[in-house]
Amino acid sequence: MLITLTTDFGTADGYVGAMKGVIARLAPEAQVVDITHEIPAQDILAGALALETACPFFPPETIHVAVIDPGVGTSRAAVAIQTPHAFFVGPDNGIFDLVLGAGTRRRKQRVSEDSSLRFSAWTAVRLTNASYYRPQVSSTFHGRDIFAPVAAHLARGVMLSELGEPIKDLVSLALPEPEKSRGGLKLHVLRADHFGNLITDLTAQEYKRWNPKNAAVAIEIGTRRIAGLSSTFADVAPGEPVAYFGSGGRLEIAVRNGDAAKTLSAELAQGIALRRLRR
Amino acid sequence: MLITLTTDFGTADGYVGAMKGVIARLAPEAQVVDITHEIPAQDILAGALALETACPFFPPETIHVAVIDPGVGTSRAAVAIQTPHAFFVGPDNGIFDLVLGAGTRRRKQRVSEDSSLRFSAWTAVRLTNASYYRPQVSSTFHGRDIFAPVAAHLARGVMLSELGEPIKDLVSLALPEPEKSRGGLKLHVLRADHFGNLITDLTAQEYKRWNPKNAAVAIEIGTRRIAGLSSTFADVAPGEPVAYFGSGGRLEIAVRNGDAAKTLSAELAQGIALRRLRR
Amino acid sequence: MLITLTTDFGTADGYVGAMKGVIARLAPEAQVVDITHEIPAQDILAGALALETACPFFPPETIHVAVIDPGVGTSRAAVAIQTPHAFFVGPDNGIFDLVLGAGTRRRKQRVSEDSSLRFSAWTAVRLTNASYYRPQVSSTFHGRDIFAPVAAHLARGVMLSELGEPIKDLVSLALPEPEKSRGGLKLHVLRADHFGNLITDLTAQEYKRWNPKNAAVAIEIGTRRIAGLSSTFADVAPGEPVAYFGSGGRLEIAVRNGDAAKTLSAELAQGIALRRLRR
Repeated sequence: MLITLTTDFGTADGYVGAMKGVIARLAPEAQVVDITHEIPAQDILAGALALETACPFFPPETIHVAVIDPGVGTSRAAVAIQTPHAFFVGPDNGIFDLVLGAGTRRRKQRVSEDSSLRFSAWTAVRLTNASYYRPQVSSTFHGRDIFAPVAAHLARGVMLSELGEPIKDLVSLALPEPEKSRGGLKLHVLRADHFGNLITDLTAQEYKRWNPKNAAVAIEIGTRRIAGLSSTFADVAPGEPVAYFGSGGRLEIAVRNGDAAKTLSAELAQGIALRRLRR
Repeated sequence: MLITLTTDFGTADGYVGAMKGVIARLAPEAQVVDITHEIPAQDILAGALALETACPFFPPETIHVAVIDPGVGTSRAAVAIQTPHAFFVGPDNGIFDLVLGAGTRRRKQRVSEDSSLRFSAWTAVRLTNASYYRPQVSSTFHGRDIFAPVAAHLARGVMLSELGEPIKDLVSLALPEPEKSRGGLKLHVLRADHFGNLITDLTAQEYKRWNPKNAAVAIEIGTRRIAGLSSTFADVAPGEPVAYFGSGGRLEIAVRNGDAAKTLSAELAQGIALRRLRR
Repeated sequence: MLITLTTDFGTADGYVGAMKGVIARLAPEAQVVDITHEIPAQDILAGALALETACPFFPPETIHVAVIDPGVGTSRAAVAIQTPHAFFVGPDNGIFDLVLGAGTRRRKQRVSEDSSLRFSAWTAVRLTNASYYRPQVSSTFHGRDIFAPVAAHLARGVMLSELGEPIKDLVSLALPEPEKSRGGLKLHVLRADHFGNLITDLTAQEYKRWNPKNAAVAIEIGTRRIAGLSSTFADVAPGEPVAYFGSGGRLEIAVRNGDAAKTLSAELAQGIALRRLRR
């Protein structure tokens, strides 16, 4: 059984080590895989994007634990979620919104004309059954005292329904969305990745809806202009900006062999616009 | 068998990879778990705190290797230590002092009125038996050439006593301690963690000794004042400082949803005082 | 079966997590070991040095995946390489040059008088057989879509020859080399490691060729002078510079308990010279 860990703890303090110890003690046969511990502190959106990037590729029934938890010690719920493909364990603060496809669903309800999207069915419980916690629960470290032991018990075969009371709604992630504006779309940067590539809020599905006839487009970043979408960095010369749908299915803006977040920082402050071109 | 690794190597140079290779070759059935490789270079205290945070949660007989080793190549001893719960392998420079409870013990001998503390019994050997080293030992990388192979041999069932000569004393860690001053305690920051939370040198046990009737207290950080101890961040408004006993059992000072080390840096230079309040 | 990962991805974006998921799905019995994900972006030399540092210590038949891949999406080849000791999977851009001993070989051909060096025999294929890729291959993330699944298939016993067409030449790494100059050698820094230790381009073998009678030497770094080679940091006082052959077999310059890259930055701009001393 696989358990993955995604946190904003860094590793230097030993907090992640404590979680690994708790899991190893309760579920010695489980294999623990680090997704990342380098999510910026309390950045739920960055955590949600990392889960969306990594989780779909793991084997069925993998248990994904995510602890980006600015609300630890408040009344925010602790949850476990089961889908046909995976389990998710963590705080109920939107961290699992993207990987569950829920962000997409909300937008779809508004856009409404597209029936081709399939949404993950999920069931969730609030982790109210303290018999699956560590015996003593601190107010500041639920990763060690609640989420790690619950994940270990799931790995040992405990049923979701034993972990607590069912809940029907999960907290949503505040997520920017492309805005329609004169003949175009105003895009937002969700995150700059490790290479400085800019990941925008436009998905390939939304793009197809907006540009069904695949008209020629241009992207304006402040005063810079990128003509058309590429399929790869190599379509432009080193140092030049390029736009493409990235490996995660969102429109990305990169600078080939460079760092777009740094190179384009002045232009980015003026906004990103995607425009259909007239012929 | 579990082997954990704690170093100040970072990972970028492949040094940790070399240690993992040595272990995989000698003890292929051992499972290797990273605690951290991000201890600040040569910071033995930070390493000791990370071990104290993580090691107690691992299963019995886990082998913890720690290599924060500014004295590599000098006459400092290499040691292996056995307790009823775990093994420890690394340089004899104080790195295991906190996790063995030895820091506590020294203080207790001075404080002396408390008989409730229990100390871990341990036995230790100096790693003098070169037949458990790699065949060639460099002067600069004992992590790869001595500590990793010794841990692998322990994982395969070699007895502690085979590894070298018994020793009775281990090097102590230079550790600040709370100082009594007019009606209060002067506290010191042992470390700012990844979130900027300030971990002080006051343990919950020492606090109870100092404040047995649980009188109201205040914490002064330079010109800032925190009224009372909280049980969680959520007791104060976002952006406000809060003091609480953290998941590791020490008094911590945090800024809710913020970074105390940054926010309070000016005040910290003027010292931290804990005071009992008169009613 | 062991699979190691070496990338410049960082971990924060979940890209490495996606690779681990792909491997876990295809080869659940394989054990995945992180060498590093902290290679500086697109720094092939740093990646090659990390592999050289770590790979030789792993058990036979370990599969080493390395993805430092500035040319992803161009016509650069994707390759798998088999040696008597290991497999290597990644882009054909020089990343495996050092660990295959190929850098050494090129130099030897020029130096030519030394017959004692043994070179690894290797066979390689270009990864042209798409049936071992993921079903859909992006243009920007071959780590997930080509290299991870190919490594997983190797771990499951697929033969190298099934993966694609044999190739006889691999791309070489641009690597500085010591230059002869009036009575000495001009050295270059390949990399400053995590501790600020400076790893030069002079190997122990080349040093012996240059100084077969083991004459006394001095190292000049700008205006600083280090008298002789040491066997360990401890040969000098804390804060002083020291030169020695490091654990990786190259001449290194360190500052004991300090950071040579920072301390000597001004001097380094003026070059490093190694000189034989007259008696």
